[in-house]
Amino acid sequence: MRFKVIFSYDGSDFMGFQKQPKKRTVQGELEKILKKINSDHKVEVYGSGRTDRGVHAYNQVCHFDLKKTLDPEKLKVSMNSLLMGDIYIKSVEKTTENFDARRDAKAKEYIYKINLGEYNPNQRKYVYQYNKRLDLPEIERGLKYLEGEHNFKSFTSTDEPKESYVRKIIQTNLIRNNNNIEIIFLGTGFMKYMVRNMVGTLIEIGEGKKKSEDLINILKKEDRTKAGVTAEPQGLYLNNVFY
Amino acid sequence: MRFKVIFSYDGSDFMGFQKQPKKRTVQGELEKILKKINSDHKVEVYGSGRTDRGVHAYNQVCHFDLKKTLDPEKLKVSMNSLLMGDIYIKSVEKTTENFDARRDAKAKEYIYKINLGEYNPNQRKYVYQYNKRLDLPEIERGLKYLEGEHNFKSFTSTDEPKESYVRKIIQTNLIRNNNNIEIIFLGTGFMKYMVRNMVGTLIEIGEGKKKSEDLINILKKEDRTKAGVTAEPQGLYLNNVFY
Repeated sequence: MRFKVIFSYDGSDFMGFQKQPKKRTVQGELEKILKKINSDHKVEVYGSGRTDRGVHAYNQVCHFDLKKTLDPEKLKVSMNSLLMGDIYIKSVEKTTENFDARRDAKAKEYIYKINLGEYNPNQRKYVYQYNKRLDLPEIERGLKYLEGEHNFKSFTSTDEPKESYVRKIIQTNLIRNNNNIEIIFLGTGFMKYMVRNMVGTLIEIGEGKKKSEDLINILKKEDRTKAGVTAEPQGLYLNNVFY
Repeated sequence: MRFKVIFSYDGSDFMGFQKQPKKRTVQGELEKILKKINSDHKVEVYGSGRTDRGVHAYNQVCHFDLKKTLDPEKLKVSMNSLLMGDIYIKSVEKTTENFDARRDAKAKEYIYKINLGEYNPNQRKYVYQYNKRLDLPEIERGLKYLEGEHNFKSFTSTDEPKESYVRKIIQTNLIRNNNNIEIIFLGTGFMKYMVRNMVGTLIEIGEGKKKSEDLINILKKEDRTKAGVTAEPQGLYLNNVFY
């Protein structure tokens, strides 16, 4: 029986989403507790995609198969009782045998949180502590250049070569709440470090080191060295996966 | 030269404010870094009061004496550069030789944060995850019984007997922001566990296990066993100290 699960996590104490030997990861933790629920039989968990070390999720999605027929509400309670508090299972539902959390995802939404005000120790793992002013209208202009279908090779790692670096950013937004800002990206797919590299570049635009219209050329060059630095992971949240 | 310092901290990774041998505490951490700044001479740090393990502060205050004459702004920068990120020095000023952070405090303000909505893993160390409904108007009525000058013996630990258990709560408030509520206490002084015991009792009032007017009797009995449980530490913040 295949289950679709929506869950949130605090990425602070995980070495990222993807399982790795002897390291605490989100996928590893889920597989560990599901094995207990599945009468000690290994369970493979398939996420909608990876998140980096230190990155959080509000509504990550995964699927897996269990041997037993379990009531989804009871499975949710069992999973939460075995988890350590930094992953929370929000919903469990039965799904069709051909549902695939990664392949079937039509769009994803990411949020990047930045504190422009005074350093806040309680936020240090949850909001990027920039603690200075940024030119927000210029960042907003920059976001408009990123919207649409582009080759985003300048904004991703080329460690793992891909067939195509073309992705579509459907919508962006900049939300201001006093000194806290959120940059939102809704797109058809995001490659490794892509959001963090776009945010790092937008921060350089907000600092006046680059201009918003430089993004035209950065995109065109398809060269990682033309874009800005990779923004720190702790401000980033996978907010939603759309099917 | 005596300095008055205002600082914030994330209480999660401290065994409380007060120094203890071989344990990481806020006072211990401040004394460790100030010794480095003070040419390896021990510095005694005097806080406005203690906070328990896991309790946070937005504007805690302390004083200490240094042998050297240091520019306050430079001292602030030095202290922040030596600290680990979970304490942040917000302001440093020179003060008079007779200023005492504890004795001179006229009032203190505490905030207790509760999430009535869905469990949020990222908030688990910063907001009490109650995750259910509470009768907020009944809690508000309860707060009114706590305001004023009362003997608060029913709300404190009697491990360390005191000359007087009389304190004055000047003002209380309940702030609602969707599913997040904050209970605010402004008072002349708070004893050990006093805020957490008041909050624990108010939660029982919000659950219908006690009535708001039961507080009259709880205060009168001067008996810890009459009040409710001690609320968890992670929702509590020392917000301000008034001089």
